[in-house]
Parts: sequence; structure tokens; C-alpha cells
Amino acid sequence: MPGPILERFLSTDEMLAVFEPRAFVQAMLDVEAALASAEAAEGVIPAAAATPIALACDASTYDLDALAAEGARAGSLAIPLVKRLTAAVQAKDPAAAAWVHWGGTSQDVLDTAMAVCTMRAYALLDAALERLTGSALDLAERHLATPALARTLMQPAQVVSFGFKLVAWAGPLVRGRERLARAAREALQLQLGGAVGTSGTLGAAPAVARRMAEALGLAPAPGPWHTQRDAWVALGCEVGLLCGTLGKIGIDVALLSQGEIGEVAEPSGEGRGGSSAMPHKRNPVAAMIARAAAVRAPQRVAALLAAMPQAQERALGEWQAELAEWPGLWISAHGAASALADAIAGLEVDTARMRANIDALQGLVFAEALTAAFAREIGKPRAHALVEQLSRRVLADRRSLREAALEALAADPALRDGLGADALDALFDIDAAARRAGEVARPQLAALRRSFSSPLTR
Amino acid sequence: MPGPILERFLSTDEMLAVFEPRAFVQAMLDVEAALASAEAAEGVIPAAAATPIALACDASTYDLDALAAEGARAGSLAIPLVKRLTAAVQAKDPAAAAWVHWGGTSQDVLDTAMAVCTMRAYALLDAALERLTGSALDLAERHLATPALARTLMQPAQVVSFGFKLVAWAGPLVRGRERLARAAREALQLQLGGAVGTSGTLGAAPAVARRMAEALGLAPAPGPWHTQRDAWVALGCEVGLLCGTLGKIGIDVALLSQGEIGEVAEPSGEGRGGSSAMPHKRNPVAAMIARAAAVRAPQRVAALLAAMPQAQERALGEWQAELAEWPGLWISAHGAASALADAIAGLEVDTARMRANIDALQGLVFAEALTAAFAREIGKPRAHALVEQLSRRVLADRRSLREAALEALAADPALRDGLGADALDALFDIDAAARRAGEVARPQLAALRRSFSSPLTR
Amino acid sequence: MPGPILERFLSTDEMLAVFEPRAFVQAMLDVEAALASAEAAEGVIPAAAATPIALACDASTYDLDALAAEGARAGSLAIPLVKRLTAAVQAKDPAAAAWVHWGGTSQDVLDTAMAVCTMRAYALLDAALERLTGSALDLAERHLATPALARTLMQPAQVVSFGFKLVAWAGPLVRGRERLARAAREALQLQLGGAVGTSGTLGAAPAVARRMAEALGLAPAPGPWHTQRDAWVALGCEVGLLCGTLGKIGIDVALLSQGEIGEVAEPSGEGRGGSSAMPHKRNPVAAMIARAAAVRAPQRVAALLAAMPQAQERALGEWQAELAEWPGLWISAHGAASALADAIAGLEVDTARMRANIDALQGLVFAEALTAAFAREIGKPRAHALVEQLSRRVLADRRSLREAALEALAADPALRDGLGADALDALFDIDAAARRAGEVARPQLAALRRSFSSPLTR
Amino acid sequence: MPGPILERFLSTDEMLAVFEPRAFVQAMLDVEAALASAEAAEGVIPAAAATPIALACDASTYDLDALAAEGARAGSLAIPLVKRLTAAVQAKDPAAAAWVHWGGTSQDVLDTAMAVCTMRAYALLDAALERLTGSALDLAERHLATPALARTLMQPAQVVSFGFKLVAWAGPLVRGRERLARAAREALQLQLGGAVGTSGTLGAAPAVARRMAEALGLAPAPGPWHTQRDAWVALGCEVGLLCGTLGKIGIDVALLSQGEIGEVAEPSGEGRGGSSAMPHKRNPVAAMIARAAAVRAPQRVAALLAAMPQAQERALGEWQAELAEWPGLWISAHGAASALADAIAGLEVDTARMRANIDALQGLVFAEALTAAFAREIGKPRAHALVEQLSRRVLADRRSLREAALEALAADPALRDGLGADALDALFDIDAAARRAGEVARPQLAALRRSFSSPLTR
Repeated sequence: MPGPILERFLSTDEMLAVFEPRAFVQAMLDVEAALASAEAAEGVIPAAAATPIALACDASTYDLDALAAEGARAGSLAIPLVKRLTAAVQAKDPAAAAWVHWGGTSQDVLDTAMAVCTMRAYALLDAALERLTGSALDLAERHLATPALARTLMQPAQVVSFGFKLVAWAGPLVRGRERLARAAREALQLQLGGAVGTSGTLGAAPAVARRMAEALGLAPAPGPWHTQRDAWVALGCEVGLLCGTLGKIGIDVALLSQGEIGEVAEPSGEGRGGSSAMPHKRNPVAAMIARAAAVRAPQRVAALLAAMPQAQERALGEWQAELAEWPGLWISAHGAASALADAIAGLEVDTARMRANIDALQGLVFAEALTAAFAREIGKPRAHALVEQLSRRVLADRRSLREAALEALAADPALRDGLGADALDALFDIDAAARRAGEVARPQLAALRRSFSSPLTR
Repeated sequence: MPGPILERFLSTDEMLAVFEPRAFVQAMLDVEAALASAEAAEGVIPAAAATPIALACDASTYDLDALAAEGARAGSLAIPLVKRLTAAVQAKDPAAAAWVHWGGTSQDVLDTAMAVCTMRAYALLDAALERLTGSALDLAERHLATPALARTLMQPAQVVSFGFKLVAWAGPLVRGRERLARAAREALQLQLGGAVGTSGTLGAAPAVARRMAEALGLAPAPGPWHTQRDAWVALGCEVGLLCGTLGKIGIDVALLSQGEIGEVAEPSGEGRGGSSAMPHKRNPVAAMIARAAAVRAPQRVAALLAAMPQAQERALGEWQAELAEWPGLWISAHGAASALADAIAGLEVDTARMRANIDALQGLVFAEALTAAFAREIGKPRAHALVEQLSRRVLADRRSLREAALEALAADPALRDGLGADALDALFDIDAAARRAGEVARPQLAALRRSFSSPLTR
Repeated sequence: MPGPILERFLSTDEMLAVFEPRAFVQAMLDVEAALASAEAAEGVIPAAAATPIALACDASTYDLDALAAEGARAGSLAIPLVKRLTAAVQAKDPAAAAWVHWGGTSQDVLDTAMAVCTMRAYALLDAALERLTGSALDLAERHLATPALARTLMQPAQVVSFGFKLVAWAGPLVRGRERLARAAREALQLQLGGAVGTSGTLGAAPAVARRMAEALGLAPAPGPWHTQRDAWVALGCEVGLLCGTLGKIGIDVALLSQGEIGEVAEPSGEGRGGSSAMPHKRNPVAAMIARAAAVRAPQRVAALLAAMPQAQERALGEWQAELAEWPGLWISAHGAASALADAIAGLEVDTARMRANIDALQGLVFAEALTAAFAREIGKPRAHALVEQLSRRVLADRRSLREAALEALAADPALRDGLGADALDALFDIDAAARRAGEVARPQLAALRRSFSSPLTR
Repeated sequence: MPGPILERFLSTDEMLAVFEPRAFVQAMLDVEAALASAEAAEGVIPAAAATPIALACDASTYDLDALAAEGARAGSLAIPLVKRLTAAVQAKDPAAAAWVHWGGTSQDVLDTAMAVCTMRAYALLDAALERLTGSALDLAERHLATPALARTLMQPAQVVSFGFKLVAWAGPLVRGRERLARAAREALQLQLGGAVGTSGTLGAAPAVARRMAEALGLAPAPGPWHTQRDAWVALGCEVGLLCGTLGKIGIDVALLSQGEIGEVAEPSGEGRGGSSAMPHKRNPVAAMIARAAAVRAPQRVAALLAAMPQAQERALGEWQAELAEWPGLWISAHGAASALADAIAGLEVDTARMRANIDALQGLVFAEALTAAFAREIGKPRAHALVEQLSRRVLADRRSLREAALEALAADPALRDGLGADALDALFDIDAAARRAGEVARPQLAALRRSFSSPLTR
């Protein structure tokens, strides 16, 4: 089965498969085949050697367990793999066997194989993000003027629209996807430096590198990056940033889904998040996965950053730690992005509950607007004091601020003359407040749509 | 194969096996069997139900892949496992099937299963630490008076003994192993709280818990710890602290093994750390593994700590993140402890090279002692100035400070009268300096030996 | 002003003062005075030297800015401080000046000064924890049978008592305070090793160390811990664990304080957490501070752990990083503990709202109990199916599960015979459910009280 | 004094001053002045109100201690500052006082003030990086063909050039500086959203925002980013990545500076890194500072990422944690960049020692080249076996591989015919090997120079 069992329900089978032992070893063998083929094309090794080597580069023919055990002794997975590959070629074509891994070093094979796997991981993550972002933008459009409570410091604040909230989810997704594409373009490079980065024994290194990079779908690197991990770790940072963005959506979904709030619910069906013992529960499973990713990803990024000071021409420990930490970041991120993509695509939105939650606040969510309106008539200090007094009374008497304000208006000519009852009513208009929030969000939404439709491609 | 392939050469097969999917699912089933058995014994469920349930608790009969896939949908691995276990019991004994998982909740099964696996992980780690510590103490004894350079801020400093250095390695190991035992004793507890921690539908909960804990080798808990993770994460902290301790030994071994220093070498043989392309190299593979663990473990601990604020009666995301992060810490730690245990047991110590490295410093490592001796005769300020002047000359002329000091003695009666040539020679006595360091270390070594011989047991 | 301005509202002035520049420099000078005094008492330096040195150890007479600037150049704060201290003694008593810092090394002074400051930090944190824990235990006692909703995965689950929740807050506090005391006892040690840890030029080191430790209120160390940081960082881990515990209380308070839930409120008054623009808001400020600490502390702990591999006899960078990270942990922890101590001492508990929130769930919170009761009559599978069907109907019709169950009882003789209407009513008894939860919590509470009354003292 | 005392010797006074309490409060006041001025220009507030408000925006007239204390109670620094600013304006111009902070919210002021300070921090960091990178490129140029040992896994490997190593330092610096500029351009934005992000009570918000942004030197934001922290934290990630890059240079400098290797030394003078007690020591102080930054920065980045899931429209704790963590990252990074800029500008390079260290390896560093040359004559397997045998003999007899290879040549016609003694000598030519490494590095160096000369500007 792919991956540790406790990752399974926090990730996806597709992403776990990308970094599976056999998939990774196959990527290493693909690198060896591409190396031989490029070297043959450039005349660095005999033309006849390339095909027998390529034919032996089939991971299904190797004993992974034995390989890993030997790698553990050698301190490198590449050393025993090259030995076994050489033996496999030797059995078919002894002359070709001499040219296996010619001019390469362990780190060349491991780093390039990881880049190849990461290219696939990137494509999966990008697709999930596209799906999620598209859903968020569509939902934002639909609810641009749907009244909803803004909440600050976990307390009800003022009226905005649900679309306004969704634009706030979509912005970091659109930007994050763009930054991810840019970082992937800069990081997914061939590694080919030989023992110490000079491609010592490998003739025609730049030409060989160009061919290999093209064959593997990677960019050629300006030089070896054995201990220059900046572009690589920068890509990891972008994945970490996306997990933060997904975590924010996750906590918002979880908070809005609480039984007492009930404004949204993740889609149910196919046994997601239910509890037979507690039939009133609908657990926000996607939010859970996103929050788990947001707890873990910062530490994975920290591990990558902590591994950056890689000494001299090959690190002792930091590089090995970095490789081992790398897959986890993608696995978490894809779990979160996929789960939220499903959840937002099918999100149940209870607009009646949103309005009821606003209504329950007795108009106090408009106190700031009322103060501003009063201030124009009687100055800010008096307006402030008056609204505070009204609010206290409203909270005590469980009535509405609008009524209390109307009474105050009636009682005070200074107010009444400037501010009519209609104007005052307008201040408490929930739909108008939601529409205003929608108007603020509309140009952002349009701009996000434009960026979303013409993304960078890696 | 056990675990991600890139963990294989940073860990051990034994520890990877502890947290393997099938091993973990078996632990979950062991918990279900123990629950049924304890409930039957206490009369909570019919006595006849226990055996059919226990018989179905065999992980080899379950399709792990299907289980994990279903768990991913449900947001919990326990839900589908209980369903399948119920079906398996149903097929043999329909009456017993009604009593599967009686009174338990998903988290009870998952947390207890993790505690069971961790108990095994603890035993492995403790054994590796015991082996490593024993070797370090023995080596310290052997080299208590072997001259070696102390180095501070990565520069040669003064003469100590190699045994003195080894005592400094051993102290944190002995203490860390004791703290680990204590933390394990406090953390490895049964989890049994039912849906919200009150063991609601489970009658006779304390008695059932006592029986289960005994059957599983765990301590009974004072109460549910569904969202009270302090003792559990405290155990994780101890593993993290040990990785720091192992990382210190790792960096020291790596620094002492450098070609230009060459004071120690990890044991070679069985293809460890060699490089056919570079025959002069002997890569310190154990140091590499220890350093990788020390880079990764702090971030794993941070993830556990970050997951501690688990809301209300069951967390949404934090708990799931914590479980998924947990095994990695043990896997890294055991890799490092085992590798260093091998390395220190067979460490090649080049005492001649140690002395040569001291000799190369022209006696300047004794400048502080010389200053102190001069200060007694001519006051600290003059002594200071004189030794500085001598030292500069020695560095320029590539001669020894001892000779220069003898000349200074000859030239200055104030010095000569108090400090004879013999006394001065004694100041530069490398063996005496090493012996003094050994004497400082000896009582520490004795105390460590005592603690080591009578460790806490969990 | 003490400390960075953005720490001020996340911490306390008392704790910021502990690590203030002048306080820290005074602690360094206290170490120098204690060293001279101990050496004089043991005859290592002339008896007459101690007093002039002690008299010059007054931080208010030093120019901290100049000191710090010079320290930045030297790469150590101790070097310029010793220079200035020597000059100050020299001005009064030239003979004594020669004996300033005799046998000490920079790290001895810095580590011991940090231990002295940390001793004060520990006392502050312990006191805040004591206050918080006491309040939590009292509140638990008072509300042991007050009905409250348990919530799992951020969804309403079943009925427990509010006291049950408070016991779950108190447990980790009591244990964490005990572990902190133990760790402080093991970590707050004198550092006295001289240049390379052998106390080279310092005669009678053990006796001097004993005197110094006693004078400074620290434990003597078994040996130098210049690069053996395990006990020290273990203390940091305990502070980090406490921040996790405080963060859990913080998130619970924040969730329970939400406008739509309203079960608790932090005490108001003295301008805490109000918002004049939004009069309905009462921001849970203590929860905010606790959550901020819980976000930051894991990373501080990770920094300490990452700094543990300190090379050879003095680290290049790791040690300096560790010292600089250290105060932040205590500053965050004390901010959180103090704020929560205030908040819990004055917590407003709305028991009516707690009951109303339970009532709003239409009895569905008792579905598990109902299923269990039905199961005894008609078997688990049928009971399960029946309660699921009833629950769906209840959710659709907005009526109570109790009524629906009564109708089912009436309709089905198999049920009715075993389970009377009274027994069924008892299943839905909110107060009884709360009492049962209280009974589960009571022995835990008693045990926590016992531990709390007889804490370890450092 | 600026900042915590233990940061002083790990950072710079310039950077500490950027985030000093008074500087930060002044930035907050600058934001208030810019807000009033922009609102007056757009007719949102009376034109006459702007000047009195601006005049009161002078941090030197506020009691920071009282402000911070009150902020601690309120849970926000902005609330008491606005109160005091209002009072200050009131005292001079009561009419204007009503318009202080009009339409703003606490977070608008705090975030924008932090962006203003960060703009300055960015300029400082960029300048230090420019200086460091320029020095590294120059040194690379000068030593493009200077023979030096490559070392892998902390063991001597093969011959490269010192310039080749410097290009490997410079690449990540050049790229990191470019990425930093890009991230700063995207992150340093005005925050202006009012209470819930809609700029509710603020008329003409986009026009006001444009004016404010221009006045403060920031970019206008597409929308509020109260809880959308992606661009901001992405900037933090870049600072973290640079600390990793600086840490790699730091560890390399430290390793090359070791007494036994001695290939480089940090510049001495002005009391940097010396030790009077140990005159042979020259502590690599800049390396120390860089390594300390590299230990700390990953965790700061993790804290920022962990704080990203900011709930709904304003976070409870995460935002406050993020602000408090932010300065530390810049403070560490500037300390490291500045120290290394000084160190590399004045780096002492001992080319003789570099060659001596190569010579000491008896030609074994050319074993790979020798094997390749032999392989062409006698096939890879035989060549491999032969060179291994020669190498073992060379290590045992302490002679050179070149001599041993010459003897092998003499003894074996198969080898001798293809490979002459001259060709064999060429294989062991240290200068030629260094020149080849230089040729590999030259185009990279040229490309880096081009990027360096035309950097992105923010």
C-alpha cells in the first residue's frame, strides 16, 4: 500500500503513489537511462551502450527490499542501485556494463529523480488548486450580495456578504498557485555535476545535460546545485504557504459549520464525516484535513530551511534529511487541496441561517455606522457616548438598536433635523450592507478571475 | 517494504516495522480484542462474545488498501476497521457481532494502538541507547588520560583528554535515557473514554480499563486524554532531546574524522561509507545519520507541540496531525542511536594523530597556563603582555612557546627566581594536562556508570 | 521600556523585566562577584580581592550601549564586560583587578547569569500557573454537575458537565507544573568550567563551585555543560508543553465565547477587549494571548532543540542562538499563564445558555444512549437502523428525539415491553447526564487537588 | 538601547533601530498622518483637520511605557495610541480631533506601520547582500584557477578551484536577492480595510488608499489582507531562505578556518574574535553569527507559516503572534549578511595551505581520473580493481598514487601502449584540475555578474 497508513486519510492515493518506493526507484532508473542515452548521442560513451542500459532500467525487476537494506549500509541508495543495474546490463551485454552511470554521482541520480517525481507532484497539486480556486470564484460570484456576518477575534462584527468572504479565500489561492508555478519553473532542474560538481570525468557535460533535461522534462541547471538548495527549498516554501492558505479556509469552514452557527456544511454522502452514534453531527472532514496540513507544513518547511547550510561540496546529513522530508510536504498539501476542492465544489450554504445569525444581534452590528451618522450631526464625542448608551440598553432589554435609535432621534431635534427616519432605516439595511461589501469585492473578483484564466505555466 | 524508501537508510528495519501499516492495524485489533475480553470479564458484554471477537482480530485477514481508502473517506481509520471487524465476527457468530467495539470510540482505539506500538518503539530505542552509552563509557575509561585537543568555536583550544570528551558525550545519554524512561512511564497509557470522554455507554469503565491496560502492557490513565496530550507530547520531547544529544556526538565524530584531523574513524567493513572513486575517503555514515536526525527531530517536536491546543472534547485536525507525525520521531531517533552505537563500539581512535595535532600548535595551547604562572611572579597585566608578545613571535617564527618562554625566563630574573625551568617544563607537559582533564572527568564517569547500571525501568 | 513593543501586549512587565538588558548584565556581574567571593574564601585568590570586585559589580554604573557595541565586535558580551569590570576595580584597587574573572570563561558567566535570570522567570511562571490552576480547580468543583455540551471535531456531541471540561483543563496544568518544577531543579545549575571545561587555571574548582552555587541559589553541576545542553533544553521543552496546555484552554475559551454560543465570557472591565465601534463584542483577550503563545512556543522549542548539536568544547553559533531564543519562551508562557489566570478567576459562566444550547439539539445528543437502550431489546443492528430513521425524521420535522422515541415505543411491543416510558425519559435527562459526567470527573479532581496542594518544590 | 541584549551581538544596530519601540510607534503615527492627509485631500474629512493631526503625530511626545501598558490591557497597541493621539489633537484643535483615525481600524494601522518599517529593513538587508555578493564575485574572479580541495561528506574529495567554491556561494546570493526584491514588491502594501475589510465608514476608499500608499512609499493593495497573509509570509520565507544561504557560507568559512585546515581566515583587527588566553585562536565570528541566524530563522519562518490560518475577518492570536515574530527574522538576517559582508570583503586566503592540503593526500584525489584513463585501455572492471589495489598500497606506504601508477604502467604493456607517462602525469596535474573547475564555473560567474548588475528594484 502506498505510504504510512496514518497519512492515507490525510492525503490522496495519487500523491502517495508519486513518491512510492517503486516509483522513486523507477525515476532513478529513468535518470540512468537518460544519462546513457544522452552520452551516447554526444559520443561520450559508445552508441551501442545506450539501449542495453535503457532496457535494464525497469524498476519492476529489482528487489527493493534488498536494495534498501544495502543502501542503508552504504549510506546512499544510489550506490547499490548502480551496482545492481551494472550487473543487470552485464548479464545481457558485458561491453555496455562499463558505461553505466558514466560520469554521474549518487547525488546527481537522487536529486534528479526527486525532481522528476516532484514534477508529477506539482502537476497534481496544481490541478487540485485549479479545481478549488474555480469553485471558490464561482461561489463568490453567486453570493456576492448574500448577507453574512463578518467575525473578528472570533466574535460577530459587522455585515458583509458571503461572496466577500469567498473572495478573501480565493485571492491567496490564485496568487499562491502563480507563485508555485514560478517556483516550480525555477526549481525543477536537472542535477548533473559528478563527484564534486565539475562533471569531472564526464566529457561534453553541457550538451549531455541539455539532452537529459529535455528527455526528463526538466530545465537544465546553470550549474550543479549539490549544496545550493535555494531554488529547491523556495519551492518547498511555496507549498508551505499554500498549506497556510488552505488552513485558513479550513478553519473558516469549521467555524461556519459549527452546530450553533450552521451557515455552511461540507457535502455529505459516501460515508463522509457522519457519526451514527451522534446523528446531528456532520463532521467537516475536509476542514480537518486542511487543518492537519496547516499544523504540519510549517515544520516541514522549517526542516528544509534548517537543512540548507550544506557544507562544502556535499552535505553530511542535511541533504539526506532534506530528501526524506520533501515528499511529506506535497503529500499533506495535496490531501488538503483535494479535500477542500471537493468540499467547496459541493458546499451547502444556508443563507437563511446567515441572515438569522445577523438578526440575532439586534442591529448592534450597525453601531459603527450609526455612530458615524450621528457624528455628522452632533460631533463624534457625543455621538460615541450616545450610541454606547443605546447599545447598553439594547443588550439589557433584548430589543433592537434600530428601535432605540429611532427613539433617540425622536427625542433629540439636533439629530432629527439632519438625519431622517428613512436615512436611519437605511443604516440598518442588511441587504444594502451586503451589497456594499459585494461592490468592494467585485473588482478583486474580476482581477482574480483574469489571473486565474491565464496562469503561468511551468 | 517497511516505510518510505528515503527513510530506510536513515533508520532501521526494526523500527520501521513497528509502525508498519499491518503492525499498526494489528495493534488496533489487539485493542478491540482486549476491550471485548475485559468487558466480558466484567460482565459488560456476554461472556460468549469475547472469543469470537478475539478470533477475528487478525490483521492478516484484512485488506489494508481497501481499509485505508474507506478510512480516507470517513476521516478516520477506526470507523471502517470496526465495520469490517463486525462483519467478520457476524460471519462466524452473529450474536457476538453486536458487542464489537462496545463503548469504545475511534480515538480510544487509535490512541491506544499508538501507545502499544510506541511501547515497542521505546524498547528498541532504549536498547540502542544502552548499547551506545555502554560503549561511550568504556571508551571514556580507556582514554581517560589520552591527550587530545579541546576545540572551541571550531578552533584548537587547549589540551584535554579524549576520555574527557567521551564523558561529555555520555552524560546527556545517561540522563536522556533516564528522562525517556520516566516520560514513557507517564505517557504509555490506555485511552478509554468513549464518545466524549465519559465512557458514556460503557458500564464499569474503571474495571474494564484496568483489565485492558494490563492485557496490553500499558498503564491505566487517570482519565481520558483525548485532548490532554501533555504526557504524550512530553515523551515526544524526550525523543527530540535525545536526537539533539545524538546530533552533538555526530558532529563531533564528523569533525574529528575530517581528513586533515583524522583523530577518529568510524569502523569500516561491509561496504560502509567507502567510495571507490575516492579511495582516500571514509565517509562517517553514522555521523551522517545522527546529523540528519538532529535536523529533522526539532521540527517533529514542534509539530507535536503545535498540535497540542486540541479543541474541546476531540480536535479537528490537530489530533490527526499529531498521530501522523509521531512515528517519524522514533524512526529518526532509532536510526541515529543504532548507527552511533555501531560506530562508537568500533570507533578507530588514532592517539598518535591526536598528539600530532597538539604538537603542531607549537605549545600555544598552554599560553593560558603560562600566563597564570607568570602572573604569580610579575602580576597579571605584565604577564599578559609578555605572553602575548611571545605568542606573536612564536607564530611568526614557527617555533615553540616553550622555547620562547625559556628564553624569557633566562632574560628576566623576576621570573626566573619564582619559576624554575622545571616548573616551566611542567606547564608544557601534554600528558600531565591530559591526566588533569581525566581527573576532572573521573568522578563524573563514576557517577554516570552508577546511573547507567541502575536505570529506571518503565 | 522593557522589551520589544509587540511583546508587551503578549506578555507581562514582570517577565520582560527579568530578561531586560540591565537585569541580565547585573546577573553577569553577580556571577563575577560570587566567583571572586568563593575563590577568596577558598584561598584561590587573595582574600582582600573579593570586596573591591563585589563593589564594582553594579550594573547601573556601566554604559550598556557601549558594552553591547563592543560585545558585538568581540562576538561575546562577557569579554567587554570583564574588561570594564577589571578597569573599574583597577581604579579603586589595582591589586584586586588582577583577580577579576579568575579561572572563568565567557560561557561560564553567560550561562550562569542566564540560569540566575531563569530562576526568577521560573518563580514568576510557577506563581501564575498556581493561580490559574487553583481557579480552574475551584470552578470545576462548582460546576461538576452543570450540564454543558461536549463538542468533538467542532460539532456538538453529547452532554457532559462544565466541571468535566474544567478537570480536563486542570489535569495538564497540574502535571505540567510538576514537570516544570522537576526540570527546573535539574537545569538551574552553575556553569563553571573555564576555557575548555576542565577549570584549568582555577584551583579547588569543586569547592569554589559549591560556594558560588549556594550564593546564587543554583545547584552545582556534576560537570561543565558548555556543550551538554540536555537538561537546559529539557526545561525549555516543559515551558513549550505548558504553552500547548495554555493554548488548549485558550481555544476552548474562544470557542465557548463566540457570540452564537455564549457559554462563557472573559471578565470585562478596565478596558479589556471591548470595541466601541462594535458594542456587542467582548473580545476574549486572554484567549488571544494564550493562542499567540501556542503558535510561537513550538518554534522556540524547535530552535533550542536545533541548537543542541554543539560542537566539541564550545559551539560556533548554536550556543549563541540558544541564549538569544531562550527568554522569548518564558515571556510568551508567562503572558499566556497570567492572562488566563485573570480570565479564569473571573470567568463569567452562562449556565442558562449552556442548557439552551443543549436544548436546541432536539435530544439528538442522546441518540447513542437511545441506541444502546433499544439494542438491549431488539439487537444492535435493528436498534441502529431505527434510531437513524428517527433521527432523520427529527431533523426534518424540527421536533425532539424523545417524542419520536416515545412514538416508536408505543408502536413496537418488542421495545415497549423491555423499556418503559420512564426509562426512556431517563435517557433524555440532561441533568442526570451531567451528573454522570461529574461523577467520572470527581476522582480525577480529587487527585489533582492532592497533587496541587503538595507540589514539588524546586 | 535597541533590542534585547543577546540580539546585539548577533545583529546590527541599524536593523535593531528599525524595529525599536519608538520607531515603530512613529511609523504608526506616520500612518495616521497619511490617512488624515489623504482623507482631507479626497474630501472625506475636512481639509482643516489634516494639519493638526499631522502635527500631533510625533512619537517623541508620547509616553511609550504607559502606551504599552494600556495596550496590554486592551489587547492592541493601536487602541491606546489612537486615544492619546485624539487627546493630543483635541488639546490643540478640538474640531480636528473628531477626524483622527477616521475609517481606520487597529489592524490597518499596525499592519501598515509594520510594512513601513519592513521597507526600511528590506533596504538595509538588500544593501548588505549587495556588498557580500559583490565581494564573493570579485573573490571568485580572482581565484578562478586557484587549486583547492573539494570536500564531500566532510572528507577531502577532489581538486577544484577556490573560485569554483565562491561561485557556489554567490549563486544563491544573487538569486536570493532577486527573489527577495520580487517578494518585497508583492508584500509591502498598504493595509486599509476598516473594521471588517470593507472600508465600511470610509468614503472614497480606493482614492484615499492610493494617496496614502504613495505618501508612505508602499504599494496599494488589491483588497484588505487582514487575514490573507500569503504575500507577507512569502516575504518572510525569502528572508528565511537567505539565512539558509548565509548559513551555508558560514559553515564553509568555519570549516576552512579550522586550525588544522587553515585555508581561509576572517579578517582580524578591532578586537574581533581573538582570545588572549589562547593566542593561536582566531574565532570566525562572522561564521558564528551566520550559523546562529541559520539555526533560528527556520523556526521564525515556521512561526509565520503556523500563524497563517487566520480565522474569518481578524485572527485571535495568530495575527498578533505573526507581528511579534516578524522583526526577529530581519534582525537575524541582517546580522548574518553584514557580518559575512565584512568577513568576505577582507577574507584572508592562504593559497599555499590549500595546495599543501591537496599535496598531503598523496595524489589519491585523482584516483577517479586515473580509473577512467585506465578504463579506456583495459576496461572498467580491471581498471577499477587495479586502482583500488594501488590506492591501498599508497595509503599503507605513504607514497604518491602518481608513482604507483607509473610503476603499474611500466609493468603492464596493455596500459603503457595507450597511456604514456606524460598523459599520466597530466592526470595528476593539480593546476590543470583547478583550471578545469574554473572553466566550469566561468560561465556561471558571468551570468551571475549580469544578474547582479541589473537587479530587480522593488
